[in-house]
Amino acid sequence: MTSKPLGVAVLGLGNVGSEVVRILTENAADFEARVGAPLEIRGIAVRRIDGDRGVDASLLTDDPASLVEREDVDLVVEVLGGIDVPRKLIFSALEKGKSVVTANKALLAEYAGELNDAAEKSRADLYFEAAVAGAIPVVRPLMQSLAGDRVNKVAGIVNGTTNFILSAMDDTGADYAETLAEAGRLGYAEADPTADVEGYDAASKAAILASIAFHTRVTAGDVYREGISKITGEDLQTARSLDCTIKLLAICERITTPKGKERISARVYPALVPRNHPLATVNGAFNAVVVEAEAAGRLMFYGQGAGGSPTASAVLGDLVMAARNKFYGGRGPLESKYAKLKVAPIGDIPTRYYVSMQVADRPGVLATVAAEFSKRDVSISTVRQQDAGDGARLVVVTHVAADSALSETVSALEKLDVVTSVASVLRLEGTTE
Amino acid sequence: MTSKPLGVAVLGLGNVGSEVVRILTENAADFEARVGAPLEIRGIAVRRIDGDRGVDASLLTDDPASLVEREDVDLVVEVLGGIDVPRKLIFSALEKGKSVVTANKALLAEYAGELNDAAEKSRADLYFEAAVAGAIPVVRPLMQSLAGDRVNKVAGIVNGTTNFILSAMDDTGADYAETLAEAGRLGYAEADPTADVEGYDAASKAAILASIAFHTRVTAGDVYREGISKITGEDLQTARSLDCTIKLLAICERITTPKGKERISARVYPALVPRNHPLATVNGAFNAVVVEAEAAGRLMFYGQGAGGSPTASAVLGDLVMAARNKFYGGRGPLESKYAKLKVAPIGDIPTRYYVSMQVADRPGVLATVAAEFSKRDVSISTVRQQDAGDGARLVVVTHVAADSALSETVSALEKLDVVTSVASVLRLEGTTE
Repeated sequence: MTSKPLGVAVLGLGNVGSEVVRILTENAADFEARVGAPLEIRGIAVRRIDGDRGVDASLLTDDPASLVEREDVDLVVEVLGGIDVPRKLIFSALEKGKSVVTANKALLAEYAGELNDAAEKSRADLYFEAAVAGAIPVVRPLMQSLAGDRVNKVAGIVNGTTNFILSAMDDTGADYAETLAEAGRLGYAEADPTADVEGYDAASKAAILASIAFHTRVTAGDVYREGISKITGEDLQTARSLDCTIKLLAICERITTPKGKERISARVYPALVPRNHPLATVNGAFNAVVVEAEAAGRLMFYGQGAGGSPTASAVLGDLVMAARNKFYGGRGPLESKYAKLKVAPIGDIPTRYYVSMQVADRPGVLATVAAEFSKRDVSISTVRQQDAGDGARLVVVTHVAADSALSETVSALEKLDVVTSVASVLRLEGTTE
Repeated sequence: MTSKPLGVAVLGLGNVGSEVVRILTENAADFEARVGAPLEIRGIAVRRIDGDRGVDASLLTDDPASLVEREDVDLVVEVLGGIDVPRKLIFSALEKGKSVVTANKALLAEYAGELNDAAEKSRADLYFEAAVAGAIPVVRPLMQSLAGDRVNKVAGIVNGTTNFILSAMDDTGADYAETLAEAGRLGYAEADPTADVEGYDAASKAAILASIAFHTRVTAGDVYREGISKITGEDLQTARSLDCTIKLLAICERITTPKGKERISARVYPALVPRNHPLATVNGAFNAVVVEAEAAGRLMFYGQGAGGSPTASAVLGDLVMAARNKFYGGRGPLESKYAKLKVAPIGDIPTRYYVSMQVADRPGVLATVAAEFSKRDVSISTVRQQDAGDGARLVVVTHVAADSALSETVSALEKLDVVTSVASVLRLEGTTE
């Protein structure tokens, strides 16, 4: 006795969409057994219907809006990319009570709130495990497994392109530009790599993670962001000499201001990470997320953060959940936004700095430089000086201080006569001092 | 406007129960916001009501059966331990439609099927994230995030006591008995450590993981089990010389028999693991689980596998989910048991062996020993021989073969005149050869 099928619309037939369609088709019996009813693909929306797309051609349509509205579509999978088009389609689906699974981090980082409101109103589900860290279950653990805990920090490597580049620079000693070019040749970087290398992709994911972890709506605009395009081979060498490597981190953190207010922070930047930290060992295109919660302690999740199959795995897990809810009645976990915590500006965040500068090689330089730190109550942890060309290279690593005090110190250093140039400024993460 | 509270019964006030009560009480406002309604503890069942238990004494009862049956109890948290008593209580709760959260692996490994049937019948929830690997989300990712994927293998370090002992033996070179005693002094081993060191606890978890991963009911009796009590300091030294360490692994695997039948395996034993394998770096009382799925690839989950707070975190995450379902209507994911795969006997499992033996030091010994392997089509990967006391120590590492062929080879070796004794036999995991 077979139950009435549930209809699925797939929007997009790129890397992820093709894998979603392939797995849904090949493992149809498993999906039916797991959901309780068969999942039937009603249509696949593509930009242009042409050539052999490797799927049943009769399913293809270039009219996603009509597909989404079809009476016999119960579930919509959105893997189009972009913002405006998928946004309208997802709204339209949710308003009609169809549940939606999306991998679209950029969309969610801007419009998760409105989309969740629409889902709430029509009692539909909105799932998006695939939007952060591909196949790695992070959204669901944060939203459900840790629902009874208090998350203090989420820190992760959530962009494979930049991690590939930084790992390769660390391995080969090569510089940024040539490594980016190599990443492009190998298919790890897109033709326009801006979203990845400037940290926009990671910032979208940070917004999503912070929203869930802190029960507060956080959008991409709330996330402080720096990319990796200024990292040099020399930075990685210096990092190595400090027993560190450099990673682009997405960090979501609960902090208490000096006045005792509870705030949150969401930020993305390349940072020095000690080599014995679990995130330092995450290489190539892999992703990892570390979660620190009050009762659970430190948890780490590791796996493939991108790619057609891994992302399809996350999409399909959500699809089974959404379909089960349709079949048995019931809903997935709702948005939790009650805490309404304020986002602290980057200047208020306690961080540590690594500053590498070219200085004149004469007596008193170190004293002059050190004075700029102490003026702003910034305590120095490590100093290294070595002869370099015309003058000397001075590397200072600080203890924790307010980011504003640290950045003001750097501005002051740049104005000093004895400092020829500040070659590099990076934050240091993954330590407790 | 406050919604009608949901009533919670807590059964057990040990390490985990006390933390559950403390966190529920201290963070009551958060729980209310996350669930939609306040959670109110209706009673706490303890064996004896005496002394100051650090909780509101009016909540204590030594009559758990009556507590569970109270009209105003909607949700039951079972953290008692044992099998017969919690089994009756959980059945009673589920039959009355109360949702249950339990951390009881031993109970689930025997009776998950019947308990799930009872939950199904009354449309109540049965959650048990805390039963495997403490705070680490493993049950929910396998059951939900990977619901659209095909899991091929789950391999994990899921017992903190044995991992503490093996890590310490690896660090210090000490022998098993003294390390166990030290673990007892430090609170990492119980007065009667049998359930941990003989692998019963890990086997319960393997049964739970295999059931979920393979959509098949697997009980503790289906799990092949060996403990760590025969591991010697010398084994760890030899492991080190092979660039390995020794870990007690719980392994759940999908295999294809030589005749092309699909089978599953669930097994627990100490095994050599290469030092560059992610599980080799999991030390002390930590747990980690590696999942290999067809689309997702390899995922790893890491964190604290035991202890009051971490386990309470997992229990409370489940409690919030079960409570949300009560409040909004709806249910958690149901048991998925449709695949009904058969469990292969250990003899049919492809494994690799490490065999360490004391042999006579004379010509022809190696040929005689090697012949026993080749007779059974077991291919040898590594051989090491060194003088040792009266004769020589011979260490053989094989390639993959059926476990029965390997164990028959060992039996044959034990009967050889030239073999004084087989000192140690361990399997080798985490390699693909």
